[in-house]
Amino acid sequence: MQNRFIDLYSDTKTKPSPGMRKAMADAEVGDEQKMEDPTVNRLRDRICELLGKEDAVFLPSGTMGNQIAIRVHCRLGDEVIADRTAHIINAESGGTAANAGVMIRMVDGPYGVFTGEQVKEAIRDPNSRNAPRSRLVSIENTSNGGCGTVWPLATMQGVTKVARDAGLSLHMDGARLANACVQSGTKASDYAACVDSLWLDYTKGLGAPVGASLAGSKEFIHEAWRQKQMLGGSMRQSGIIAAAALYALEHNWDRLAEDHDNARHLSEGIANIKGLKIDVPRMETNLVFFEVNKPGWTPARLVEACKERGVGMGTAAGNRIRAVTHLDVNKADIDSALKVISDALAA
Amino acid sequence: MQNRFIDLYSDTKTKPSPGMRKAMADAEVGDEQKMEDPTVNRLRDRICELLGKEDAVFLPSGTMGNQIAIRVHCRLGDEVIADRTAHIINAESGGTAANAGVMIRMVDGPYGVFTGEQVKEAIRDPNSRNAPRSRLVSIENTSNGGCGTVWPLATMQGVTKVARDAGLSLHMDGARLANACVQSGTKASDYAACVDSLWLDYTKGLGAPVGASLAGSKEFIHEAWRQKQMLGGSMRQSGIIAAAALYALEHNWDRLAEDHDNARHLSEGIANIKGLKIDVPRMETNLVFFEVNKPGWTPARLVEACKERGVGMGTAAGNRIRAVTHLDVNKADIDSALKVISDALAA
Amino acid sequence: MQNRFIDLYSDTKTKPSPGMRKAMADAEVGDEQKMEDPTVNRLRDRICELLGKEDAVFLPSGTMGNQIAIRVHCRLGDEVIADRTAHIINAESGGTAANAGVMIRMVDGPYGVFTGEQVKEAIRDPNSRNAPRSRLVSIENTSNGGCGTVWPLATMQGVTKVARDAGLSLHMDGARLANACVQSGTKASDYAACVDSLWLDYTKGLGAPVGASLAGSKEFIHEAWRQKQMLGGSMRQSGIIAAAALYALEHNWDRLAEDHDNARHLSEGIANIKGLKIDVPRMETNLVFFEVNKPGWTPARLVEACKERGVGMGTAAGNRIRAVTHLDVNKADIDSALKVISDALAA
Amino acid sequence: MQNRFIDLYSDTKTKPSPGMRKAMADAEVGDEQKMEDPTVNRLRDRICELLGKEDAVFLPSGTMGNQIAIRVHCRLGDEVIADRTAHIINAESGGTAANAGVMIRMVDGPYGVFTGEQVKEAIRDPNSRNAPRSRLVSIENTSNGGCGTVWPLATMQGVTKVARDAGLSLHMDGARLANACVQSGTKASDYAACVDSLWLDYTKGLGAPVGASLAGSKEFIHEAWRQKQMLGGSMRQSGIIAAAALYALEHNWDRLAEDHDNARHLSEGIANIKGLKIDVPRMETNLVFFEVNKPGWTPARLVEACKERGVGMGTAAGNRIRAVTHLDVNKADIDSALKVISDALAA
Repeated sequence: MQNRFIDLYSDTKTKPSPGMRKAMADAEVGDEQKMEDPTVNRLRDRICELLGKEDAVFLPSGTMGNQIAIRVHCRLGDEVIADRTAHIINAESGGTAANAGVMIRMVDGPYGVFTGEQVKEAIRDPNSRNAPRSRLVSIENTSNGGCGTVWPLATMQGVTKVARDAGLSLHMDGARLANACVQSGTKASDYAACVDSLWLDYTKGLGAPVGASLAGSKEFIHEAWRQKQMLGGSMRQSGIIAAAALYALEHNWDRLAEDHDNARHLSEGIANIKGLKIDVPRMETNLVFFEVNKPGWTPARLVEACKERGVGMGTAAGNRIRAVTHLDVNKADIDSALKVISDALAA
Repeated sequence: MQNRFIDLYSDTKTKPSPGMRKAMADAEVGDEQKMEDPTVNRLRDRICELLGKEDAVFLPSGTMGNQIAIRVHCRLGDEVIADRTAHIINAESGGTAANAGVMIRMVDGPYGVFTGEQVKEAIRDPNSRNAPRSRLVSIENTSNGGCGTVWPLATMQGVTKVARDAGLSLHMDGARLANACVQSGTKASDYAACVDSLWLDYTKGLGAPVGASLAGSKEFIHEAWRQKQMLGGSMRQSGIIAAAALYALEHNWDRLAEDHDNARHLSEGIANIKGLKIDVPRMETNLVFFEVNKPGWTPARLVEACKERGVGMGTAAGNRIRAVTHLDVNKADIDSALKVISDALAA
Repeated sequence: MQNRFIDLYSDTKTKPSPGMRKAMADAEVGDEQKMEDPTVNRLRDRICELLGKEDAVFLPSGTMGNQIAIRVHCRLGDEVIADRTAHIINAESGGTAANAGVMIRMVDGPYGVFTGEQVKEAIRDPNSRNAPRSRLVSIENTSNGGCGTVWPLATMQGVTKVARDAGLSLHMDGARLANACVQSGTKASDYAACVDSLWLDYTKGLGAPVGASLAGSKEFIHEAWRQKQMLGGSMRQSGIIAAAALYALEHNWDRLAEDHDNARHLSEGIANIKGLKIDVPRMETNLVFFEVNKPGWTPARLVEACKERGVGMGTAAGNRIRAVTHLDVNKADIDSALKVISDALAA
Repeated sequence: MQNRFIDLYSDTKTKPSPGMRKAMADAEVGDEQKMEDPTVNRLRDRICELLGKEDAVFLPSGTMGNQIAIRVHCRLGDEVIADRTAHIINAESGGTAANAGVMIRMVDGPYGVFTGEQVKEAIRDPNSRNAPRSRLVSIENTSNGGCGTVWPLATMQGVTKVARDAGLSLHMDGARLANACVQSGTKASDYAACVDSLWLDYTKGLGAPVGASLAGSKEFIHEAWRQKQMLGGSMRQSGIIAAAALYALEHNWDRLAEDHDNARHLSEGIANIKGLKIDVPRMETNLVFFEVNKPGWTPARLVEACKERGVGMGTAAGNRIRAVTHLDVNKADIDSALKVISDALAA
């Protein structure tokens, strides 16, 4: 049993550091809805610069970023093209249909990364009255369901070309865009140039407690503000939490490389544990997925056994376990976790 | 070139016969919304008897039957399990999401006929707050996208058991339920017992001009009437067209066997034409799907060439051509059509 | 007790005449969705000419005309300006919100006829992020809830000017537009010029069994066809019922004057019955609303008592009774009805 | 010109005090979605106790509380009964229809406080297929649009009785419920007992930067969590901002009496300024509405003139100005503000 619980359940578990807490406590604030919160405004400027977009809006969550974008880009009866593992399909409580009245045309990545050719095949006949109307392509980078896969910029550009040639808009779910940038060396603004809207999450590897920023053209963000109010996302002195986001951008971006190293270390360790199966090179960033191949063992049983021994992980689609590295976990923790996993399976 | 255009585009092309026209002209009518149309009421009674359901409502289309059923069974954010070829996904202009705010969890039949096991895998974790909520299984019988495949009753019963054990409702799109019954010898009421709601279409092989009947429990139909009004489906003296439906049930049900024979004859003929590819035994009812494998030829080109020569067909998903037999086409027409197709391809 | 039941419940109760039935029986038909129904196409041309619009689509009901128009003109979160008595508020089962996700900003006519000034006051601040977005003005002509009031053309033009100056679209619910035209002598196309979309109903005073036509620009109708499919309104050989609509336009338009005369005769008779209260000049067309002012009597009681004596009427909002004249009721019937009402109240 | 800008625009302008900032900086946090945030959990327990409800959920805004509640209580096509001045009608960007597909049946308070009798009249005939279905009564306490009016408990109980007898649910928008309790001496739990769900806002007079709590039965809150995720309201370490809410409940509740005194002082001062018109006794809590009756002056002009002189206020519906007292404004500020207003108008 670990002295300290090592929580690899998700990078959403990160807690604000003392420096980040101080930034929040000292934040200059105002009413964000009146555009009077200087910290929120500063975050907006910082994000516009980082992503090369005209405007941005601060939100209580990244899920709201997806829901707003789909509503702004689409009308009732439209169809969004997305990978079958996408967060908007599996983890937003059915919001895509419930909030925007749009259907999703699924493509099969693989590993969440699809091609322009696949998009071309997924686009509906625009002359049909009976088919849904293709309107938007949604890209998740990195792809969570695809093992934290990073989109190669050229692949994304291929998708963008096909979509734009067909008059479709593009949106990016950037829950872990920072991980993609750090791992691939691609600039966030180069990814952002491929899409009409995107959001960046502060609560995952970047370690802030609450919030995400949605960015796009001035016109898009103008509409996004209306949708933010409609969905109940308008806040008041949100500079308090925006201060943590600014702190995260400054201090926690580059260090994601360390999480990726730790994830690689974890993957390699898992590959050496008998009864577990992992595709090590596939784990490109901070998400580690693996299977349990030992008779009598299910993912749920191993997760439970490790939890009792002081290591948190989660079950995932496809009969897998997911473990996630983040700023509250160091390399020694990984070694401890590997020992716990190995011991649990041997018990 | 044919003297008479042979229209194999769809069984929706059938025109009312003289006997059916007379039935319409003579129909006793009233305001259906006040339940005062005796012909509409007679059709309701006839359908309840045929399907073994408590109540039924007459609608301007079968598509409305799907849209109403999904709205009555589901709430915003729910998920419907259906085959990826389903009409509700591909041919209702995105209505499933736009009208009811529900998402669709696709299973892959094959040929549109899925199993209880597949449904089991598709049902979401009911304890998850983030997954859509599984609520309804929708079955299309015959499966249009699956080449007019007939659901074996036992397969459907297997789906029903899994769904009901999990607390899900079931709905059937019976656009061509009559074809399924005639081909398999299964009683319509035995199929209907597997689902909570279903509709039967009068405008396809049954040859009526307008309408479908949606059937279910008294409580379900009570709600369906509200949804019918909400969607704009309430009519007035609809006994005129209900009379054609009654005529169709009486005169055109058993004769669907003839359409199936003609479809088999057409399939076998196509199998003998060089450059075409067809899976003959797969064509179980009145829908015939085939591929064009000749260099330089696409489905669209062959459809166009045949149209010019007097035979109508349509292109279909999966790079195929679809030809449909129905009561306005006899065996000699099939022979003529085969000659036209062969000639067109040889030209 | 009447020998024959005199049904003044609604002009929706009219039954097709022998001539209309013959027109239906003889109609040339095809698949309307393929634009192959010559009768439906002829009706479209006739309506475009009558209303001075580019295109039109045949629908199973006028309610569907409202629901489609609102969906085409509006987006989620928009607001429609309408009179508080409007059909879209009170009699479409909540469809306006359920189908299109729009709110309604009510104005208070009076008698269903509002002014440009009232519209100006109802338009939301376009700079507000929190107010719904004003997008459409909906006009009902005649106004059913307003006692069948005819919109003066100049009043409508005043509304149109305000709406267009503010960038809003306009729609007309023409359930009884024919009555408005016949009573006022205003051409249908002059009314139609005030709005971007409108529909005409065939099942009320015009006496056809099923259907309405929605008209507008080519672009509007293109979208309307998609919405028609989405709502389940697409039919097949609907030329059968379109033939009745064409017959109605030819034979039953001008004779609405007779219904108006009968309604006036009925109103004057009611004014002479002690215990009833009616504003005779207010009953401009074929709808007659009156109150019961006799101790112990409610509208429901008098409606019931008259029904037992062979005269059908309905209760209406505002503690009133509504009686409607139409082509199945002549002047002698009105005299009989008046006697029945008087006798019932005296009993 | 004031040295310090006195912002009476809204009580949403309040900024976190040093004590509140310290509470946030020191908050113990975790992932709220995993129920692991101890501060969020503590806030939930505190609210359940305060309101006498089984469960509660923390949200980024009160608007989300309205939107969630309407979605949980209602289905597509349902109707909510609310006062015509309600926030859900005028200030949630059309969300009520856009998110939940429900219509609103407006009653006319007056001053936002309606009676059971008015609710009774507003309930639709449950036997009608064509009327929307009455499902929910929504109460705003205090009523913002009604000048901050406090609902008498007995009046609310009268509404509750009528609604429950008719099978309707009740919801309360408690944006300023604390003001109502402090002014009337009514316990929050007594108000809460009248409704099935309600929310309390922390960002208005209570002075916290972000958030509201929605409370109800266990079953209601279970559904509310799903809707929270669907609308994008799920946060992570929201204990940071929940800590401010807890601080607000402890320190800023009773002192609202001071805001009410200041508002009364402001109202009386306004009553003495020539050219302004105010109904002093009507201003029961911290909201002050008044009219400008001086030739050449509009509300917008006076607001602008005062802003230049260092006092912030806002324009409101009905050609009025709204000024709001709160914890960042003391009695001396009110005196200064009155002088500014008087001077501006005299200039």
